[in-house]
Amino acid sequence: MVRTPTKEDRFSFGLWTVGWLAADPFGETTRRPLEPWGYVDRLAELGAWGVTFHDNDVFPFDATDAERDRIVERLSRACRDAGLTIEMVTTNTFTHPVFKDGGLTNNDRAIRRFGLRKILRNVDLAAELGATTFVMWGGREGAEYDSSKDLHAAFERYKEGLDTVAGYIKDKGYDLRIGLEPKPNEPRGDIFLPTVGHALALIAELDNGDVVGLNPEVGHEQMAGLNYTHGLAQALHAGKLFHIDLNGQKGIKYDQDLVFGHGDLLSAFFTVDLLVNGFPGGGPVYDGAVHFDYKPSRTDGMEGVWESAAANMDMFLRLADKARAFRADPAVEEAMRRSGVYELAEPTLAPGETVAELLADRSAYEDFDAQAAAERDYHYVDLHHKAVQHLIG
Amino acid sequence: MVRTPTKEDRFSFGLWTVGWLAADPFGETTRRPLEPWGYVDRLAELGAWGVTFHDNDVFPFDATDAERDRIVERLSRACRDAGLTIEMVTTNTFTHPVFKDGGLTNNDRAIRRFGLRKILRNVDLAAELGATTFVMWGGREGAEYDSSKDLHAAFERYKEGLDTVAGYIKDKGYDLRIGLEPKPNEPRGDIFLPTVGHALALIAELDNGDVVGLNPEVGHEQMAGLNYTHGLAQALHAGKLFHIDLNGQKGIKYDQDLVFGHGDLLSAFFTVDLLVNGFPGGGPVYDGAVHFDYKPSRTDGMEGVWESAAANMDMFLRLADKARAFRADPAVEEAMRRSGVYELAEPTLAPGETVAELLADRSAYEDFDAQAAAERDYHYVDLHHKAVQHLIG
Amino acid sequence: MVRTPTKEDRFSFGLWTVGWLAADPFGETTRRPLEPWGYVDRLAELGAWGVTFHDNDVFPFDATDAERDRIVERLSRACRDAGLTIEMVTTNTFTHPVFKDGGLTNNDRAIRRFGLRKILRNVDLAAELGATTFVMWGGREGAEYDSSKDLHAAFERYKEGLDTVAGYIKDKGYDLRIGLEPKPNEPRGDIFLPTVGHALALIAELDNGDVVGLNPEVGHEQMAGLNYTHGLAQALHAGKLFHIDLNGQKGIKYDQDLVFGHGDLLSAFFTVDLLVNGFPGGGPVYDGAVHFDYKPSRTDGMEGVWESAAANMDMFLRLADKARAFRADPAVEEAMRRSGVYELAEPTLAPGETVAELLADRSAYEDFDAQAAAERDYHYVDLHHKAVQHLIG
Amino acid sequence: MVRTPTKEDRFSFGLWTVGWLAADPFGETTRRPLEPWGYVDRLAELGAWGVTFHDNDVFPFDATDAERDRIVERLSRACRDAGLTIEMVTTNTFTHPVFKDGGLTNNDRAIRRFGLRKILRNVDLAAELGATTFVMWGGREGAEYDSSKDLHAAFERYKEGLDTVAGYIKDKGYDLRIGLEPKPNEPRGDIFLPTVGHALALIAELDNGDVVGLNPEVGHEQMAGLNYTHGLAQALHAGKLFHIDLNGQKGIKYDQDLVFGHGDLLSAFFTVDLLVNGFPGGGPVYDGAVHFDYKPSRTDGMEGVWESAAANMDMFLRLADKARAFRADPAVEEAMRRSGVYELAEPTLAPGETVAELLADRSAYEDFDAQAAAERDYHYVDLHHKAVQHLIG
Repeated sequence: MVRTPTKEDRFSFGLWTVGWLAADPFGETTRRPLEPWGYVDRLAELGAWGVTFHDNDVFPFDATDAERDRIVERLSRACRDAGLTIEMVTTNTFTHPVFKDGGLTNNDRAIRRFGLRKILRNVDLAAELGATTFVMWGGREGAEYDSSKDLHAAFERYKEGLDTVAGYIKDKGYDLRIGLEPKPNEPRGDIFLPTVGHALALIAELDNGDVVGLNPEVGHEQMAGLNYTHGLAQALHAGKLFHIDLNGQKGIKYDQDLVFGHGDLLSAFFTVDLLVNGFPGGGPVYDGAVHFDYKPSRTDGMEGVWESAAANMDMFLRLADKARAFRADPAVEEAMRRSGVYELAEPTLAPGETVAELLADRSAYEDFDAQAAAERDYHYVDLHHKAVQHLIG
Repeated sequence: MVRTPTKEDRFSFGLWTVGWLAADPFGETTRRPLEPWGYVDRLAELGAWGVTFHDNDVFPFDATDAERDRIVERLSRACRDAGLTIEMVTTNTFTHPVFKDGGLTNNDRAIRRFGLRKILRNVDLAAELGATTFVMWGGREGAEYDSSKDLHAAFERYKEGLDTVAGYIKDKGYDLRIGLEPKPNEPRGDIFLPTVGHALALIAELDNGDVVGLNPEVGHEQMAGLNYTHGLAQALHAGKLFHIDLNGQKGIKYDQDLVFGHGDLLSAFFTVDLLVNGFPGGGPVYDGAVHFDYKPSRTDGMEGVWESAAANMDMFLRLADKARAFRADPAVEEAMRRSGVYELAEPTLAPGETVAELLADRSAYEDFDAQAAAERDYHYVDLHHKAVQHLIG
Repeated sequence: MVRTPTKEDRFSFGLWTVGWLAADPFGETTRRPLEPWGYVDRLAELGAWGVTFHDNDVFPFDATDAERDRIVERLSRACRDAGLTIEMVTTNTFTHPVFKDGGLTNNDRAIRRFGLRKILRNVDLAAELGATTFVMWGGREGAEYDSSKDLHAAFERYKEGLDTVAGYIKDKGYDLRIGLEPKPNEPRGDIFLPTVGHALALIAELDNGDVVGLNPEVGHEQMAGLNYTHGLAQALHAGKLFHIDLNGQKGIKYDQDLVFGHGDLLSAFFTVDLLVNGFPGGGPVYDGAVHFDYKPSRTDGMEGVWESAAANMDMFLRLADKARAFRADPAVEEAMRRSGVYELAEPTLAPGETVAELLADRSAYEDFDAQAAAERDYHYVDLHHKAVQHLIG
Repeated sequence: MVRTPTKEDRFSFGLWTVGWLAADPFGETTRRPLEPWGYVDRLAELGAWGVTFHDNDVFPFDATDAERDRIVERLSRACRDAGLTIEMVTTNTFTHPVFKDGGLTNNDRAIRRFGLRKILRNVDLAAELGATTFVMWGGREGAEYDSSKDLHAAFERYKEGLDTVAGYIKDKGYDLRIGLEPKPNEPRGDIFLPTVGHALALIAELDNGDVVGLNPEVGHEQMAGLNYTHGLAQALHAGKLFHIDLNGQKGIKYDQDLVFGHGDLLSAFFTVDLLVNGFPGGGPVYDGAVHFDYKPSRTDGMEGVWESAAANMDMFLRLADKARAFRADPAVEEAMRRSGVYELAEPTLAPGETVAELLADRSAYEDFDAQAAAERDYHYVDLHHKAVQHLIG
């Protein structure tokens, strides 16, 4: 490791990550479960600051209230003892067969009501445990067949569900914000809210959208061939980047949940560059947890689990160092200037300029020499190569 | 052809579609250009109702004002004579090398100003010609390298540009609405506003977003592996489906612009089903032009151009007939009921029900038999197979 | 259904298809298992001719010999009673955790030996039950990390394994041919032999390749964005199309195993066209089983399982009718002629023509009017539209 | 640059790479052409050892013999003067509209004859100029529509064409080998021989296949979501890796031709690792040119062209240094041993062991403890992370 992570790094892990037993569509589990609290000490030792979980990562779907309370208390204590923050809680509305057609958008109204109740109950738990983010991944909200859904009704129900949960959070005065997690497909053929954009768009229609933002995951955007860093940027621009899920993915295929940086390394570098350095010309910054949502490889045992957990943090720290050096390098700054990167922050209209004035500015159009302007050499490849040199230098 | 299209079908074609000369990244043109008005009569004969174009489909980039006016007048007259409506106009901010880094988000401010002016000038033309939609495809707004853009600034500039154009339309009182056309990539490595969702999200941030909506293209969404009909539905739900671009695409690869229905036929069927039948439980409907944005195959000559233009309309008409029969079939209605399709339109909370009341409803959670509910057989495959049977029956 | 299938249709199903209990990476099973023979009668009733299975679809991984014999005998009897042929048998070298790094190419030699033994044992069973095809899907042969495999050694071991099994079949005189089943990824990040092409290429290096051919699956090729029918054609051209796996897939994403035709319908049409009509100019034909390797949707119950099984056969029969009508239509024949489809079967060199003669033929080059030849209008869109019209006519 | 390349590095560039004028499907050229020999000096200065070209990169499609001879002589002299080797020559059978349906598999027989003649003529030129590789990229051999091709005939014609060219090479005694370059799509919807595997498979059917091998391109394999290094390995295993095309690609989308390493950096690292270090357990090695087939970005001018050319070589040299250090690191060697990487080179059967002996070895099956073996922790993530650490360390 480049250095041991500290609490200040705000690294956080889902219990379902190190706790993944490695069953997949074609194979049985390859590892044995620990108790939920069995993962806590080791994560703390490795340098994590926080943990996160789904309700049913901790207690069974059909736990009695007493059983649930006992287990939660036990986990909560373990976290306190280990000095770990429970920073995010999320609800499992996908594993149990009752959710096979989704929770909030299930065609079955009784199941929708049940799903909503399960989520609301978990909001209370999240608040009680001091979590500040409440992630909602609607992985079963979707369809394989266009015939099977009234799509307008689906968006109406999704909106109703989100507004109900968000309204509840506000009514209760919880210090909790919802982070929607988009995904294009798997386990459904097409999932509603497939990308960062679609989720932002629905949030804009909510009545209680002020407490609803995003929890974008690297691999999910990349499964649609999209640029994750672009997605983070648009979410930041909208004031909606509430949480992040870092991991790795090798292109458009099944959801791989590799270690962060073990998929598209260059993209990971620029993601970290944005997270630690911000936009070149300033603007909103992300100040939440650095949350890893990965799966230890099925071919690894328990030692491998901890090796891979550490690898995520090591990767982030290394990339952060590289990204800082990249942006601090005067030659890079000069190259960015040459490429016009800073120039993009200048408004296109001058301060106070009206459209009428723009239309009257002959230098902008009538006298503009497009042929000459077209000659500009942006030197983008050279700038990019400087980034790569910093990364692997 | 199943029947000759009529004006009531509102079929419309871009001049750049039948006018595509078939140069591609690895080959020269295979067809010779007609004058812009040379395409008009034949489109009208084939049954089209409307035509659309980019400024530079009609007059050269560097046309003098007099040349421009003469050509536009000539085209306009040809359309009038042929009984064709100029329903949409759009601006070319991608062909000339000056736009190699984009128009509204070019790192070069002078080029941004030039691009904005070119667009504003074209707004006037659109209004003058009676178009009601003004499409903006920002195909060059994007990047190949994450280092080359200040992403926050890019979104700021995109917003500034759109707000300027939309504000101008409103100030002038034009009966014109902007239709943003998302695309994930090509010609840029990553295009800003890659999907319907991202465009809706940015519109929600605009000051003048009331006149800005979407023009989603079949192939563009499918290039990201997304479901086009889902995209249309979310745009309709947001009140933003202003225009559509129908064509065909065979999966995630370069932009193919095949004839509508010649790509993913089942998806095309459900798109038409939505367009002609609306959502099963009601909701917003699309009432704009049925616009084709396709390319006649490079292996076809001018006869093939007209064959393919006709094929688009024939395809839509056939699918419309099939879709109407599908939804009118009592057995289908029964199957939709069995699958719970209509049930999704029922709000999850009862009319007037509060969250407190939902929380107090023991039948929704405490007494809910999840195991029993999980047994529901949605019969989605059977319903879908009924759709396929109607399609090919 | 268009008509009830008959034995002559040679429809065959894997027991693991209708027997899939619908656990997926994010969810538990939604259906309960029947005994293996519990699927047999219903498949026969629906019109199937054959069944296929993995060893561990029938008996447990750790069954005793006695248990195994009893169960196999029971299943075998059920098939006989139902009039079903056991046409193919395959080996499960992917579910048990011992195979987490593969069978034949596992980095662990002892596991490779175990995997090979498991396969050889199953060859005996296949022969004993009268199967004529022995499918080998190496779904776990692969890697997530380029560092984890000596790739040359991997191909050597794959070759060694295949040659051992094929040699054993030949030594024993079994009337059995191996069908390799390529897949690009899932459950491994990259699977060895990712496509039809890669498998054909390795077969060409085998010592006992004469009894080794292919079992291409629709969805697997489409997961790499490849054209399934092209894959079948190349396998036929190589004399290696021994078996097929029909199902449906909606583009490049996780393995969906939809009903045949419920994915890319146009592609399914042309696949059936090839299977029932053969190549336009003649050539090798496929005369094996029409085997479906699909999964009944997780949202469907047991009724839905049978509905979907029937849908596969109905789909094939409908497409076969359409494809026959398409090729029998004189207008289509004329369009094919106009497009030069039959012309491609003419050798480029005349019968007996030498290269020297070709080089001496001035009409072929020096006097060839490339510009004039470039004018040819292939009318491919029109021909394709005729196919679509037949399909949905 | 990490160091200036030398002739020993054997770096080679296509004239069409630095000479690309940057027209794309949506835009005009952004750079002006130099004469073919205008690229030569600068490439030599930057450290290149070789150049390559298509016939029509150098002289026009319709050049007279005298014009052709004059231009070729001029280029040849420039290369000699600059100390550059013409290591590979290839034929353009894709730009001129006559090839819009392909050369060797065009439905039009006269065009096939013309295409074959053009290729044969270029074979003579390649031999005359001392090239040792003759690349054949059949980018137009393919189809958009399954109806438009007799696929068996297409493979027959492809085979006939390749055998004719290969036979001619052998008859003439040229020291020249053919390198087929697979690509899945673009400019055709589906290209024949879409991947390394498909090309190897067809070569195995040739009569003159001994002089036919592969020229795999990074981006082309990645456009099908395939692992380039796996492709190289299978080609090496088959004794068919005759040439390589290095560049960069960001996933499944249009053909990007980025600088090598500017796409999937981790994959580039392992490609170089294979090229410079070979397989861990030995085996065939690649000893040909290190050929770059990239495109300087359209946003860059002529300075950018040379910056990007240099970046390709710098990238390879850096990755080579890193890869050598990776494999020389004792901790890596130990980790590879722990992961069983070397163990895969051990045959599964013991030296001389018969199948009968394997079947008799109870330790391999009957007494094998699968449960215990399944416990093995392969530590693949840790090994991979060590590679990443070396890469960015």
